[in-house]
Amino acid sequence: RRGEMAKSTQLIDNEVFRAYATYTAIVLLKMMLMSLITAYFRITRKAFVNPEDTGAFGKGESAKKYLRTDPDVERARRGHLNDLENIVPFVGIGLLYALSGPELSTALLHFRIFTGARIFHTFAYLLPLPQPGRGLSWAVAYSVTISMAYKVLKTAWLL
Amino acid sequence: RRGEMAKSTQLIDNEVFRAYATYTAIVLLKMMLMSLITAYFRITRKAFVNPEDTGAFGKGESAKKYLRTDPDVERARRGHLNDLENIVPFVGIGLLYALSGPELSTALLHFRIFTGARIFHTFAYLLPLPQPGRGLSWAVAYSVTISMAYKVLKTAWLL
Amino acid sequence: RRGEMAKSTQLIDNEVFRAYATYTAIVLLKMMLMSLITAYFRITRKAFVNPEDTGAFGKGESAKKYLRTDPDVERARRGHLNDLENIVPFVGIGLLYALSGPELSTALLHFRIFTGARIFHTFAYLLPLPQPGRGLSWAVAYSVTISMAYKVLKTAWLL
Repeated sequence: RRGEMAKSTQLIDNEVFRAYATYTAIVLLKMMLMSLITAYFRITRKAFVNPEDTGAFGKGESAKKYLRTDPDVERARRGHLNDLENIVPFVGIGLLYALSGPELSTALLHFRIFTGARIFHTFAYLLPLPQPGRGLSWAVAYSVTISMAYKVLKTAWLL
Repeated sequence: RRGEMAKSTQLIDNEVFRAYATYTAIVLLKMMLMSLITAYFRITRKAFVNPEDTGAFGKGESAKKYLRTDPDVERARRGHLNDLENIVPFVGIGLLYALSGPELSTALLHFRIFTGARIFHTFAYLLPLPQPGRGLSWAVAYSVTISMAYKVLKTAWLL
Repeated sequence: RRGEMAKSTQLIDNEVFRAYATYTAIVLLKMMLMSLITAYFRITRKAFVNPEDTGAFGKGESAKKYLRTDPDVERARRGHLNDLENIVPFVGIGLLYALSGPELSTALLHFRIFTGARIFHTFAYLLPLPQPGRGLSWAVAYSVTISMAYKVLKTAWLL
């Protein structure tokens, strides 16, 4: 029983894996924050999609006018979907990369650039910043994931 | 070769990891069920988005009328997207949490509340139940993921 | 310190895990490719959703006409979302499956069929191929994931 528990914690004792865990938790929490931002815009802009969500703002016909789209709500939703499209590959490929035995400094470089670029991307999307700010931050994070995938495929290749 | 196989199964021998595997499989299967529910509504409501999908219901001009949106289809799709937005962080953060050495009872509490809340959320979305049923079940599952992320960051922190 | 690093690479030394890593990297890269395909259609069809993205094509009123939807852009986006809905469960359940001690040949069969079916699905969606091509490839990949989930639940079950 003791040996089993020791085994279970060994991954988290590895420094590269600890770095992966830290940055993955940060980018997933950042992605989750998009839900709160969307909810904030839905409530302040009074723009809902489900009839049952408008109850606090009126009943019957008077509530129907809140079933509408709002540019800020849609912008936050697009930022959220873009996170899903880009953070899911980072989490999946990053795990395999962390287990492929990279140098700690190289791994940290990948994780830090990805995380910084995605946080910048969120600001660029929500403010919004003029292009190519958002486009470049998207491309930087995308390239980091490609670089990790290359290391994974080089190390693990078994087709 | 023997030692290698023993190593490969050790994670799955750990009780917290087994619990994580069980609940992750359940919530991912539940998320996959949303595809079948959307397909069911598309077929019974005859509401499609791709022209090539309407072939069974008519040809040419007569098929075009099935290229439309339907409230039940859209509701199922929103439930599916909400699952993606919330179950992806659970799967990613939950894996790191399971490897961070929590007590089995604490881990089970997290996994059970999350899974129960997300199953309730699906019923609340599809029926639909009056608010705040859906909102509360969303918030409960969200809080469980935050709690696991806190444990991961406390254990693994390496920035 | 040396022993720690040896431990960190043991998963990647396991053949089933190497196969999982290879196919997961491939399907996630394929999913990421959908972003580039969407961007390609947005630029060639001049169909954007964010006002700040139209700058290269005109200013003020003349740029507004590029804020529109385009059938090819929407088709690529639906293919991307379908990937998220199906590749996320594969990555999550596949990891647990790879750790549940399957035979290498059985695991390879699962990973190869899933990957082949999802690559076919993308072609079927984008060309598009007549149905039931896309529907069948979706169902094949879906069934592979269900089969892996069954093995995971049978091996790990701890509720």
